[in-house]
Amino acid sequence: MREDYLTKTDFYLTDPKVFLPGFSVDCVILAFQNKHVKILLNKFHYNDKWMLPGGFVYKNENVDEAAYRVLKERAGLSNVYLRQFYLFGDKNRTNFEENEKMLNANDVKNQNDHWFLQRFVSLGYYALVQFDKVKVKADPNFEDIQWFSLDEIPELYSDHNNILDKALNTIRKQIDYIPFGYELLPPKFVLSELRVIYEALLGKQLDRRNFQRKIMSLNLLDKLNESKKEKGKRSTTLYSFNKERYKDALENGISLVNW
Amino acid sequence: MREDYLTKTDFYLTDPKVFLPGFSVDCVILAFQNKHVKILLNKFHYNDKWMLPGGFVYKNENVDEAAYRVLKERAGLSNVYLRQFYLFGDKNRTNFEENEKMLNANDVKNQNDHWFLQRFVSLGYYALVQFDKVKVKADPNFEDIQWFSLDEIPELYSDHNNILDKALNTIRKQIDYIPFGYELLPPKFVLSELRVIYEALLGKQLDRRNFQRKIMSLNLLDKLNESKKEKGKRSTTLYSFNKERYKDALENGISLVNW
Repeated sequence: MREDYLTKTDFYLTDPKVFLPGFSVDCVILAFQNKHVKILLNKFHYNDKWMLPGGFVYKNENVDEAAYRVLKERAGLSNVYLRQFYLFGDKNRTNFEENEKMLNANDVKNQNDHWFLQRFVSLGYYALVQFDKVKVKADPNFEDIQWFSLDEIPELYSDHNNILDKALNTIRKQIDYIPFGYELLPPKFVLSELRVIYEALLGKQLDRRNFQRKIMSLNLLDKLNESKKEKGKRSTTLYSFNKERYKDALENGISLVNW
Repeated sequence: MREDYLTKTDFYLTDPKVFLPGFSVDCVILAFQNKHVKILLNKFHYNDKWMLPGGFVYKNENVDEAAYRVLKERAGLSNVYLRQFYLFGDKNRTNFEENEKMLNANDVKNQNDHWFLQRFVSLGYYALVQFDKVKVKADPNFEDIQWFSLDEIPELYSDHNNILDKALNTIRKQIDYIPFGYELLPPKFVLSELRVIYEALLGKQLDRRNFQRKIMSLNLLDKLNESKKEKGKRSTTLYSFNKERYKDALENGISLVNW
């Protein structure tokens, strides 16, 4: 596996033989920080739009491995909760103009039949990560990479806004089967943090008392003998997921419907 | 779109330019007949294994359109409930030996660098169809095509058993969001038929009385003033789905968990 993939765009853009042709992966990397659910986006200096971190698939790696590699390369993470959710295969999804600009910016010759200017299909993945564990990696000489809150996503490269929307819709539909609380939160957290995550993913406000009553009735959380004190506020009890009971519940679906 | 695709395997096997390279679609086509949930499988005469109906994607068609085309070509159906569920992308999934046999059987020359002998990824789709509406299409000169009950699936070509298992697992997990009763049953049916479908898809027996009580409490069915009389049995009341209420319920998920 080449380690220089990240920093040498001109190299990978001129080397078609090592990748599956016309196939890419794009990753919606979700984390929770400072009361917001955020995603990681990157932007090449020669491109004017932010994009989902993604890449191509080496001919000798599984497609899923390519997505794990992106997570490792961009966020320094292994053992991540990562799931494919949709194959974006519309014949008109590839933006040839944008891709041509990329080639120009990289001084690539013989553009007319360049492999990067053919039709691409892309497999969308979403990842749930703990913010504090992420070590964002980028070469500042040629790209920016940063977190964006779900409520302030800019216009993205190609059809990446569509990919993001589809990811969030999928999570919404499968919310009872996805351990997003466990994956996004640190081991100890306050109930309002869990509620805010539900609110961001469901796209609606939840009643504080109702949420508290319901989540406790599911018997998935352990109340700890510790509390958290934020400046100027009352101290708040900390909770943790009971991993075993949570896992059992997810297998049958936690009934949170109509929360 | 070429109409001779189905009957001229030698033609499509020697014509690489028209398809997306290394990419195929495979369809799990589910129907309900004679108290069994069944899937449609086909077998080329020169191949000794049954396979899921599938095909390649024309360069000028959406990937989803290719799957609809397979449904149209093999089952004579349009307007089908069809959903992609997983991209099978393991590097070792392509069985080169089996594919070489296919080429040999079709007298294809210059095999060594033949496009059919490269690594393929395949997008899995499942379809829910009404048995009586299907017009199975096949040219008896070169292939067989027939229905198999879920409890008597043979060993399939390549990784197709795995694709089928994954389809059924996906349906099981999303069972509260999929209108399989509506799609698989005729407009009028008896309750036991709906129960048998749930049992086949969930892979377990359900208590008859419990099922009846719960399904009626969901207020999705209209009881009709008609009944069905099978030979030697009591007549049984017919029901139909209330399409509007069913649609609403599916959007929020029908809580059938733990049935």
